[in-house]
Amino acid sequence: MRGIAYGGDYNPEQWPEETRREDLRLMREAGVNLVNVGIFGWVLMEPAPGAYEFGWLDEIVDRLHATGVQVGLGTPTAAPPAWFSRMHPSSLPVTREGHRIGVGGRESACPSSPEYRAATAGLATALAEHYAGHPAVALWHVHNEYGAPLGECYCETSVEAFRRWLRRAYLDLSSLNDAWGTTFWGQRYTAWEEIDAPRANHTVVNPAQRLDFMRFTSDEHLDCYRLQRDILRRITPSVPVTTNFMTTNCKSMDYWAWAREVDVVSNDHYLAAERPDNHINLAMSADLTRSLAGGPWMLMEHSTGAVSWQPRNIAKTPGEMRRNSLAHVARGSDSVLYFQWRASRFGAEKFHSAMVPQAGTDSRLWRDVKELGADLAKLSGVRGGSVRADVAIVWDWHSWWALELEWRPSIDLAYRERVDAYYEALWRSHVTVDFVHPTADMSGYRLVVAPSLYLLTEAGAKNLRRYVEAGGHLFVSYFSGIVDEHDTVHAGPYPGALRDVLGLTVEEFHPLREGETVALSPSARSEEALSEEALSKGAAPEEAHAGRVWSERVRPAGARALRAFAEGPDAGHPAFTRHDLGAGTAWYLATGVADPRPLLAEALDAAGVERPRDLPETLEAVRRAGHLFLINHGDRPVTVPGVTGSGVLDGVEYTGAATVPAGGVTVVREPPPGRG
Amino acid sequence: MRGIAYGGDYNPEQWPEETRREDLRLMREAGVNLVNVGIFGWVLMEPAPGAYEFGWLDEIVDRLHATGVQVGLGTPTAAPPAWFSRMHPSSLPVTREGHRIGVGGRESACPSSPEYRAATAGLATALAEHYAGHPAVALWHVHNEYGAPLGECYCETSVEAFRRWLRRAYLDLSSLNDAWGTTFWGQRYTAWEEIDAPRANHTVVNPAQRLDFMRFTSDEHLDCYRLQRDILRRITPSVPVTTNFMTTNCKSMDYWAWAREVDVVSNDHYLAAERPDNHINLAMSADLTRSLAGGPWMLMEHSTGAVSWQPRNIAKTPGEMRRNSLAHVARGSDSVLYFQWRASRFGAEKFHSAMVPQAGTDSRLWRDVKELGADLAKLSGVRGGSVRADVAIVWDWHSWWALELEWRPSIDLAYRERVDAYYEALWRSHVTVDFVHPTADMSGYRLVVAPSLYLLTEAGAKNLRRYVEAGGHLFVSYFSGIVDEHDTVHAGPYPGALRDVLGLTVEEFHPLREGETVALSPSARSEEALSEEALSKGAAPEEAHAGRVWSERVRPAGARALRAFAEGPDAGHPAFTRHDLGAGTAWYLATGVADPRPLLAEALDAAGVERPRDLPETLEAVRRAGHLFLINHGDRPVTVPGVTGSGVLDGVEYTGAATVPAGGVTVVREPPPGRG
Amino acid sequence: MRGIAYGGDYNPEQWPEETRREDLRLMREAGVNLVNVGIFGWVLMEPAPGAYEFGWLDEIVDRLHATGVQVGLGTPTAAPPAWFSRMHPSSLPVTREGHRIGVGGRESACPSSPEYRAATAGLATALAEHYAGHPAVALWHVHNEYGAPLGECYCETSVEAFRRWLRRAYLDLSSLNDAWGTTFWGQRYTAWEEIDAPRANHTVVNPAQRLDFMRFTSDEHLDCYRLQRDILRRITPSVPVTTNFMTTNCKSMDYWAWAREVDVVSNDHYLAAERPDNHINLAMSADLTRSLAGGPWMLMEHSTGAVSWQPRNIAKTPGEMRRNSLAHVARGSDSVLYFQWRASRFGAEKFHSAMVPQAGTDSRLWRDVKELGADLAKLSGVRGGSVRADVAIVWDWHSWWALELEWRPSIDLAYRERVDAYYEALWRSHVTVDFVHPTADMSGYRLVVAPSLYLLTEAGAKNLRRYVEAGGHLFVSYFSGIVDEHDTVHAGPYPGALRDVLGLTVEEFHPLREGETVALSPSARSEEALSEEALSKGAAPEEAHAGRVWSERVRPAGARALRAFAEGPDAGHPAFTRHDLGAGTAWYLATGVADPRPLLAEALDAAGVERPRDLPETLEAVRRAGHLFLINHGDRPVTVPGVTGSGVLDGVEYTGAATVPAGGVTVVREPPPGRG
Repeated sequence: MRGIAYGGDYNPEQWPEETRREDLRLMREAGVNLVNVGIFGWVLMEPAPGAYEFGWLDEIVDRLHATGVQVGLGTPTAAPPAWFSRMHPSSLPVTREGHRIGVGGRESACPSSPEYRAATAGLATALAEHYAGHPAVALWHVHNEYGAPLGECYCETSVEAFRRWLRRAYLDLSSLNDAWGTTFWGQRYTAWEEIDAPRANHTVVNPAQRLDFMRFTSDEHLDCYRLQRDILRRITPSVPVTTNFMTTNCKSMDYWAWAREVDVVSNDHYLAAERPDNHINLAMSADLTRSLAGGPWMLMEHSTGAVSWQPRNIAKTPGEMRRNSLAHVARGSDSVLYFQWRASRFGAEKFHSAMVPQAGTDSRLWRDVKELGADLAKLSGVRGGSVRADVAIVWDWHSWWALELEWRPSIDLAYRERVDAYYEALWRSHVTVDFVHPTADMSGYRLVVAPSLYLLTEAGAKNLRRYVEAGGHLFVSYFSGIVDEHDTVHAGPYPGALRDVLGLTVEEFHPLREGETVALSPSARSEEALSEEALSKGAAPEEAHAGRVWSERVRPAGARALRAFAEGPDAGHPAFTRHDLGAGTAWYLATGVADPRPLLAEALDAAGVERPRDLPETLEAVRRAGHLFLINHGDRPVTVPGVTGSGVLDGVEYTGAATVPAGGVTVVREPPPGRG
Repeated sequence: MRGIAYGGDYNPEQWPEETRREDLRLMREAGVNLVNVGIFGWVLMEPAPGAYEFGWLDEIVDRLHATGVQVGLGTPTAAPPAWFSRMHPSSLPVTREGHRIGVGGRESACPSSPEYRAATAGLATALAEHYAGHPAVALWHVHNEYGAPLGECYCETSVEAFRRWLRRAYLDLSSLNDAWGTTFWGQRYTAWEEIDAPRANHTVVNPAQRLDFMRFTSDEHLDCYRLQRDILRRITPSVPVTTNFMTTNCKSMDYWAWAREVDVVSNDHYLAAERPDNHINLAMSADLTRSLAGGPWMLMEHSTGAVSWQPRNIAKTPGEMRRNSLAHVARGSDSVLYFQWRASRFGAEKFHSAMVPQAGTDSRLWRDVKELGADLAKLSGVRGGSVRADVAIVWDWHSWWALELEWRPSIDLAYRERVDAYYEALWRSHVTVDFVHPTADMSGYRLVVAPSLYLLTEAGAKNLRRYVEAGGHLFVSYFSGIVDEHDTVHAGPYPGALRDVLGLTVEEFHPLREGETVALSPSARSEEALSEEALSKGAAPEEAHAGRVWSERVRPAGARALRAFAEGPDAGHPAFTRHDLGAGTAWYLATGVADPRPLLAEALDAAGVERPRDLPETLEAVRRAGHLFLINHGDRPVTVPGVTGSGVLDGVEYTGAATVPAGGVTVVREPPPGRG
Repeated sequence: MRGIAYGGDYNPEQWPEETRREDLRLMREAGVNLVNVGIFGWVLMEPAPGAYEFGWLDEIVDRLHATGVQVGLGTPTAAPPAWFSRMHPSSLPVTREGHRIGVGGRESACPSSPEYRAATAGLATALAEHYAGHPAVALWHVHNEYGAPLGECYCETSVEAFRRWLRRAYLDLSSLNDAWGTTFWGQRYTAWEEIDAPRANHTVVNPAQRLDFMRFTSDEHLDCYRLQRDILRRITPSVPVTTNFMTTNCKSMDYWAWAREVDVVSNDHYLAAERPDNHINLAMSADLTRSLAGGPWMLMEHSTGAVSWQPRNIAKTPGEMRRNSLAHVARGSDSVLYFQWRASRFGAEKFHSAMVPQAGTDSRLWRDVKELGADLAKLSGVRGGSVRADVAIVWDWHSWWALELEWRPSIDLAYRERVDAYYEALWRSHVTVDFVHPTADMSGYRLVVAPSLYLLTEAGAKNLRRYVEAGGHLFVSYFSGIVDEHDTVHAGPYPGALRDVLGLTVEEFHPLREGETVALSPSARSEEALSEEALSKGAAPEEAHAGRVWSERVRPAGARALRAFAEGPDAGHPAFTRHDLGAGTAWYLATGVADPRPLLAEALDAAGVERPRDLPETLEAVRRAGHLFLINHGDRPVTVPGVTGSGVLDGVEYTGAATVPAGGVTVVREPPPGRG
């Protein structure tokens, strides 16, 4: 495949022949070159146990091939047939409260069910053998969105699989008892068979047990994926295998582990329709996906307009679909795919938008789809190209899981709330961001930001320390480095895993009341330590710096205080500190400011991170493979200075500045650095 | 029975002999002439399987007869005895989540249980044979409030009954697969036994499946009723059979189907105590009940004061009980009955008001009960009389069910919200309203209003078109005509079933954000189409016209725009249209205005619907059988012009005007039209 | 033991030897003299069925003894081992909805389980025999917080036990049917086996059944306690036995019954962290505990700082721990104990504060712990001393249970809301309060306040009447005296059990709308009855007297109206009345004023209750055993006049006045009365 892939999920089985002929004509008209078929087709491919029928699918695949459209072939294991559930009732998932899920929805099989796994292996084998060598098949699209709606399962089969998982992880029961801290509340296990899933209880369940059950759940789904992938790779070694992630929106799967197992990372992204700034969350999702992929990736699903499953499914405004799609491309996607090609007339998602809407082709939406197809044809040059970032945010699903367990210091502590706040601050500062695992090599980044890194292993802590000592700049937000991989508090004063790198200890947590804010004192001389005296005097509060959710008693031990709390339980004590360590520097902010930009700017400046200073916040600027993408999310034209090169979409030659229309996108192919 | 029936549910089994003697005396004093007995008396009538004991009931019935009070005899099947549940544990209902309901409440048997049905048939037979020919028995009151608290049951017996229901409805599985759109999410069934009830799932269940389960549920309860009715009719052919509906308050029963099966329609109505304008909802309930009955009906239950089951059981104010009761009579009821005669000292409803309150007879409430008895004695002339309406609202339980399924465009879409808004607008305009099924003959109405008629069958659509073409006036609110009987979107652009009659299509839905409003532009020349130019200019918004919940892109195709959106996602595009078709006219309003009166008035005027223009909103005026009921809900006297005739309650002769006291009711017997 | 006990729960099994050595050193340093060990140690004491291992515990107990620290020895039955649950799966509790609770939390055994009871008896026997005569063991601490998180259990074993409980309570089924009013809704039972627990239903369950199930639940846990206590008493007769109550925070246990069964009443109290005035709730808890004990009691658990299980675990401010601890001592506690000695590094409560925090000993918290230890050493003189109160509040768990059953007149009716409001009013008036059961001897009190005493038995009613007739002063709040012990309305007009003592009847309840308030008219001449005329005129409302939640139609029958409703459904009718009866007086307030102080003051004055008039509200003053505790909850110093004696903590001699620092506590040993 050359150029950007364009298309979506295609379900011709829902339509009569006449519509299917029109589909092929319209795909050509819109420049569609890739569609995913068969995603939910299990019962059609295998209407009775072991009786495979691919004739209906052959016809579709062949016709698509004849039309010049490549095919992502779905292994439809997210939709076990009703006959399967009837044959194997114990395969139906069970909720944490003990309800057995019935048929009539989707994802109705426990990932640990041996019968389910055997059936998926059989189907994947038959499908691969049948389509091996078919020229249309460009990609295997395994399952669909592992992890939702089915994440954890609490059936007996799952409990047994959990015990096996624990045996492999801990080898002996005494290690498990130590790791889980079962001396607390007298929970010590004397036999593996005593261990249960952390099912609904009248009080909280052991947090380490819950954390391990989350790990088990991610692994168990991943095993299901690997089972199919290995079959597909064996039979059709040249066809890449993927499964669609939901990177920012799926808490239950540890995608760092998953990303290692796919040939190409692919992602589904949907806007939170009612949020006015949801293009920032889109950029974050794309950046996280690119970071997981370590390079280009595929946008497997997004929407042309409204979705169907949110409380109020706000439609996209004119131009928004184009901005969304091109933002994904700018941030590393080699494809622009949708759920779905044509809106269904029935089923749970009939009000979900599509490339061909219920209104048909005499519609703005269809015209936009065609125009975007033409745009994408001009962008083939970015395919495979990379995106470079000077700043990274540390992201770890395990820390997310642990942080949001029950009985934490404050329910206002939330992983995504802080990560999103820092991402948003960087986005609004026109800084492109990568995401990194706590143990990743960070040497390529000028600044690394660690928000809400509650769980941090010894290895992660050492890695961060190494990074700083070698000259890196690290910016840490509160409630980080508190526990190890078993949710056990690191020995000694908080934050155990980060005391040395931050040069401080925390004597006591002081969660704030609901809605309470605490002002920070201004920094007269930001590079000098404030005297204890100056701190205790306090100062006029700066509104923009007001902290929420959190306050704590910071005691510097090497760090210098740059700001103090001017109010609240820690008034007069440090709120923002800096610690020079080796060749680098570590910052610490002990409260949840709504907008971290002013304080983050000090770290960005110290780290030498360049970024435009004179652009409005709504102008998104990203570089990929020699192309500068300028995306205007505002309602006024924006003139961007310093732009030189060829306008790829509009054919204009820019020499010094480019004016991006309100709501528009300009892509400029810049001259290679040598030539400028 | 002559005149208006007056009385209530009577439970003498709760009281000692002394109180029972007082009851009979007080009934005479208050003019009570009908009470319902035995409603929850199963365990007393059949204390052991098949061992019937009616002696205690004979005594009551005989004494009531001797006192001149007629009896509605309850078949007490809403209260299966605890011994029955113990004997047949599988008869206990199961919730959607899988909990089996226990004893200790009421309605503790699954309507599909064969043991339950057999037991009810046995009891109904014994009861009918015992009381056949008893002169006191005027009515069979079967069961109690079918549909609540027990609507759907998810036990295995129900699942099997659902499969039988589906076989009868679809005959072959392929038709069911087509109707349910099971190609979506790979849900195709290959055997009837694979089909389950739509029990709780981790995602949405097939909407057509849920819709059919709702139909099944209504039918299954109706079968229970019919089983008893047929027995009663066979044994006591001259005694009419009814069961008490809850017309506006029970979503789960399709009363259009039920109304065909009863000898007299009866209804229970309770105010939503905290709503200040709950007399409008009362009027709506009465009008819907009359429409179901096609004429006079019985008010089987309402309350003298507070109920016991609402969050805050606000008591009625002085005069409110009288206004309520007489409003029901004005709108077609031939009875004024209460739950209950005497307040219980124990059980779940001991704080529910009654005709004889806990405070006894030295109370305002008892004095009001006696006075109302005297009033009703004067109103015997209206018994059996009809109420005429020029305007009808389309009402369909199936559309209600479908509209409120999961994953709709906006959770703010709600059936009752819009129907209530239009009913209220008409009530405040002093227009009497009938309710009609979408396929009913509408030729007698000048105007038909269709709010939230989301589900509309081909037959219903044709019926509406025929009505308009023949000269009718049709006013349609948004999100109507979208799906067919299987919740499948009608082919082509929205609103598939109404495009032709409305002369427009809808290109895209634009649900509004929570609390968002969009102003409409004024109509300079309401009878002319606004030019695209004028529309796109917009205009000063009219606050009273502000739309909520919904906006959409309307594209006229024959219709003329009378109002445009002045704001929001469809600014400059039509919001309110008119389409002349054949001899009639169809209006369409594409948003949810809080008060539809100004726009509705244009349709009322065009349709020639006469209504008083100079009355305050709080004065309710309804005509029944030559009697003009004037009910003053306000706190000031109101003088109503043009009133001539005899004051039935007050004995005053009115010649030209009547002044209705604050909070009072005046009923005027008007001279026959010939005489005026 | 001499002096105030100081210490907390101690879990050395969570720590290495090094830490345990440090623990002993630090305990000495802080003056700790009592710790509770083994509370959750079942699986360590009995790692396999019947195989007891006390070696680890011996070491701890011996070392504590050697250090001079006494031991409260826990019987760890709140933490059944996982092996026990695996061996006896039917012992796992079942929720009202039918979920079986799993392991991984705590309290995972049904209190009615015979296997569980047998295992606890075995363990208690072994433990008692092992430690009989050990000089360190000063106390048996049975179980932990009976009643939470496990209150009601709905398993089959519980249902059978419930039936046995009912047989004992009612002897014959006909009495049960009468008591439960099973004629309502046809619920009559014909065999004991038909009766079920009041499990989740689609409608309300018989309220008398629910009430009895609550009684059964309290009794069933109490039986578990007594089983152990009897064993312990038999084997170690000289060691007192207790179990820790949660007096104000546990609705499910009837502590009046429990208090009779313990050798010393002990209590756990935790602040509602986000409430700014939670020291008032603390005082209430302490007063209730003292009243249950009938004298001195033990504070078994409170916290040094934040807890871990509230939404936002706000830390205590500097000085707050000291004020809290000394307030408990002032109100009768002979101990100051905490959960826990040292903060855990793992498990569900690792963020709970402790005497030794995560930050270690270089912390304010540890320094405060040491200082408090020194303070307490000076307070040995109050040990065993009593507290005297002139005013009592009637408190009854049965009334609490009954009042908050489903389907009451208004969901705003809440037991604690009113009791707390009256307690707070008395606290702010510097009046020390006892709590009394409705049938207790009240002759020692000048004033008795009965808020929300919805359930009142004949015996209770007679007792109150006797109290008033003998010269007592009784102040009753609305919705009192309504039902008997079976939730059956007392015959005749409301409030059946109090009509005679209050000299009035209530004709009808008029619950107010959400947020609605009704002003009361002023009392020109509070000692004279207002004429009907004056009442009906109404008057300018007094804001401070505005009623909420409730209004009702009061009809005096001997009582005089002191205030009238100036607004709302009862405008012009009495709101506050006084009835002189025998040698005493009864007041009645028919609405929920936010601050009852002004009206309560009239009763306090009439009853001759002395209290300081010139102290700020934030200064808490309590006398115990000749010591005047002055606790300043405000942020300014307060000078208290009339203080003479020796400052116990500060060594100052006060002669006439004492100035208590902001946030500080002053304890003055006053000269004996004879000397003044």
